[in-house]
Amino acid sequence: MRADMLTSILKQLNGTSAEIEASGVISTDGLMMAAELPQSLDEDRVGAMSAAMLSLGSRTAQELDRGHMDQVLIKGEKGYVLMTQAGQDAVLTVLAKPNAKLGLIFLDVKRAAQSIQELI
Amino acid sequence: MRADMLTSILKQLNGTSAEIEASGVISTDGLMMAAELPQSLDEDRVGAMSAAMLSLGSRTAQELDRGHMDQVLIKGEKGYVLMTQAGQDAVLTVLAKPNAKLGLIFLDVKRAAQSIQELI
Repeated sequence: MRADMLTSILKQLNGTSAEIEASGVISTDGLMMAAELPQSLDEDRVGAMSAAMLSLGSRTAQELDRGHMDQVLIKGEKGYVLMTQAGQDAVLTVLAKPNAKLGLIFLDVKRAAQSIQELI
Repeated sequence: MRADMLTSILKQLNGTSAEIEASGVISTDGLMMAAELPQSLDEDRVGAMSAAMLSLGSRTAQELDRGHMDQVLIKGEKGYVLMTQAGQDAVLTVLAKPNAKLGLIFLDVKRAAQSIQELI
């Protein structure tokens, strides 16, 4: 099952670092394809916010001559949201704690996005 | 003149790194307060996209339990857009080249945002 394989990639990603709290694969129209979220987070909300940020981020990148968008990172006082394109049709959204080492997270997330892209 | 002092902070910021291409201080409602942009970039466009990203980024941070938003980073194939809160009323938007060293840029931009916050 492809959904099981996506979930397996997300479980592995969440396991690479104690600072990764949640992850999900979302179609570019905002529907959840696979998710490993804590109970406190609603799948639909993560999907909707990811799709909205992706859409506006893409437009911003184009309007400001940054070309095709690869990633959006939001830093809040209580942690990070990192959205990464996984091919044309999906985005990998990851939530991390405020003390996360961004260099490591970027690396692990990039690898996971690559695996997801190959699968979809 | 406060506008001159803001422009001076931006000139200094753009001078810290050859990878910083442009910077601007924008009110939270999207109006430009000071800008050091290349001719190819329109002030109104930078202002509007910054305000829109800031608004959606804040909402995303809140909806996904990341608290108050500090920064949004967009990575495109042709470079970065980094938006940083400079106090309650303004945002510092910086455009950087794709080969920029993010750690250095984050540091310089944080300092500039602090100076802007104290000035406004």
